Amino acid sequence: MPPPPDVVAVRLAAARNGTAAAGLDGLLVTNPVNLRYLTGVAASAGMAIVTAEAAVVVADARYLRQFEEAVCDLPQVVVAAVGVGHSYEGTVASLVAARAIRRLGVEAEHLTVARLAALRRTPELAGGECVETHGFLERFRAIKDVWELGRLREAGGRLAEVATCILPEVSEGRTEREISWKVELALHGAGFERPAFETIVASGPNGARPHHRASDRRIAAGDLVVVDFGGVLEGYAVDMTRTVAVGRVPAPGRAWLAAVAEAQQAAIDAAGPGVLPSVIDGAARAALARHGLAEAFVHGTGHGLGLDVHERPTIGPRGDHDGPVAPGMVFTVEPGVYVAGQGGVRIEDDVVVTTTGVERLTGAPPDAEAHEF
Amino acid sequence: MPPPPDVVAVRLAAARNGTAAAGLDGLLVTNPVNLRYLTGVAASAGMAIVTAEAAVVVADARYLRQFEEAVCDLPQVVVAAVGVGHSYEGTVASLVAARAIRRLGVEAEHLTVARLAALRRTPELAGGECVETHGFLERFRAIKDVWELGRLREAGGRLAEVATCILPEVSEGRTEREISWKVELALHGAGFERPAFETIVASGPNGARPHHRASDRRIAAGDLVVVDFGGVLEGYAVDMTRTVAVGRVPAPGRAWLAAVAEAQQAAIDAAGPGVLPSVIDGAARAALARHGLAEAFVHGTGHGLGLDVHERPTIGPRGDHDGPVAPGMVFTVEPGVYVAGQGGVRIEDDVVVTTTGVERLTGAPPDAEAHEF
Repeated sequence: MPPPPDVVAVRLAAARNGTAAAGLDGLLVTNPVNLRYLTGVAASAGMAIVTAEAAVVVADARYLRQFEEAVCDLPQVVVAAVGVGHSYEGTVASLVAARAIRRLGVEAEHLTVARLAALRRTPELAGGECVETHGFLERFRAIKDVWELGRLREAGGRLAEVATCILPEVSEGRTEREISWKVELALHGAGFERPAFETIVASGPNGARPHHRASDRRIAAGDLVVVDFGGVLEGYAVDMTRTVAVGRVPAPGRAWLAAVAEAQQAAIDAAGPGVLPSVIDGAARAALARHGLAEAFVHGTGHGLGLDVHERPTIGPRGDHDGPVAPGMVFTVEPGVYVAGQGGVRIEDDVVVTTTGVERLTGAPPDAEAHEF
Repeated sequence: MPPPPDVVAVRLAAARNGTAAAGLDGLLVTNPVNLRYLTGVAASAGMAIVTAEAAVVVADARYLRQFEEAVCDLPQVVVAAVGVGHSYEGTVASLVAARAIRRLGVEAEHLTVARLAALRRTPELAGGECVETHGFLERFRAIKDVWELGRLREAGGRLAEVATCILPEVSEGRTEREISWKVELALHGAGFERPAFETIVASGPNGARPHHRASDRRIAAGDLVVVDFGGVLEGYAVDMTRTVAVGRVPAPGRAWLAAVAEAQQAAIDAAGPGVLPSVIDGAARAALARHGLAEAFVHGTGHGLGLDVHERPTIGPRGDHDGPVAPGMVFTVEPGVYVAGQGGVRIEDDVVVTTTGVERLTGAPPDAEAHEF
């Protein structure tokens, strides 16, 4: 189900206001995820020009009808076709000239160097000014609206059920790939459109690689097994990691599990409206440091979730450029430890910032009784 | 299985020679697919600097070990780590300065405007020259080596088997989504790592949208059903479409099927070494024009396949910028007709250019007896 027209209309109004407030005559939207946010249409091609007055969606024959159907009930939105034999750049340039746009914002984190050059080569844009914007619509997207929170809550609940189903399957003799396929079956069974990313099943020494791919390695007694999986529901991604202790895990591994669980709880306790990402990250890092594991935590504490599986805010030591987290922001909390040649542990849940703290989207804390952290 | 070291070594040597031949002191590789081509490692982050003498892979802690293990047996390759608290841009800038690179090629079709600006802000690169390159490594990738052709032949054969299994399932009363899930199960059963893209099942009027997503619509008697699916095997994508006639299809639909089958065969017959993409595309277009369906064919005839599901060459009316197709190139041949409100037809197979013509990778031509075109 795409978002209802009134939800999309609010997003478009915010984008129009934001464009004017930034002193731009227009914003050229080239990131397909931003285009989906503004129209409800998921397409691999298409652009939009947002001005203070209107939004013009630019589409070619492959997606023209989808966009037309999606925006026909929305005020101040029109669809312009890229004609046969014409390019996106040429079509955009004509529209920019027709609307007398001088200062055109571009999405610098998405627009390629080649595409900007092609735009600047058009006669219409040669005289105008292309202004780099950074995370313009992404900052709007970071604050989820009520409709989006409904999707993310539903998705988080279903992902927690997937965890309940599949973690008991993580057992001696199974291959990583078998577990990863069981996760994908369970995601489908739970109604997810697709996995949010390639499921990670990293057992024993493979756990030392944060982004290991599931291999044919057989899980052995004494292994820690990191299972990191996510699903997309109505376009929205949720993401979860559990680390399963198979059989009797040697003492260092048991200590890592306890330390990472403590670090995750510390970060969740620290999070809330007005808190800087570096403070949330620092809480996890300090907990691991108390266990002598500061060096073993080689990535940030979390990332935003939404139409992208990695989006703003970034919860890390250098994540403060957008300011503190705010109500409606949804992100992962996923500290880990990685010890080369030995193994690793990661525990990940998704939270939404509320007016008083955070709410877990992926169910209850990990179940230490079941050796599933 | 990653490519064997001798295969990767040849690619790296070609990239080093190409960099020198292009008059560049170095090429900055930022496209992760190109990095995979040069190292065998699939990672969501990482860069490389290729010079006439060597390649330096730049990686952060998440992927450092994978890259180190992959290149340890290769001559003239080293791995440089992005240190904690450092950025990719800063690390690249230091390496560029250390190697006295003045003219640094960048991948303009992949590098973002923001990232180029960050590189240019480093003191080391402020004085140097960043040269836009377009499709530099992609042109090497377009000509598959023998190892790659082995993967693509195997993948194409397996995809044809998936078609044989799943097309009989396309029947009255099933929903599009049910069929799409059966395709994904069959892809897994055939050993594919993952679908190459979201499977398209477009029945009845939905067939008028080339990029329709599978919906809950139930297939009805008299429908044409477009099923477009692909799989990734050892990193390489193959892609196939069949259109199934369910029950008694009205006369216009039957005419579309015959016309598209004829157009596909015309394009395959036209293809071979030294033939321009526009000529291959033109053969399909002319066949459809003979049936009065020129306007209904709203996209190009095909696209290259390899580590990307869409890569060079582009087989379309404006696909000649890279010259004629050559032996070792692998691409789809997929004409279609799309009639708004009524439906559509597409037939797609994958071919490799040989020294004398083309070889089909996805099995025999479609089976008209089984109403599967």
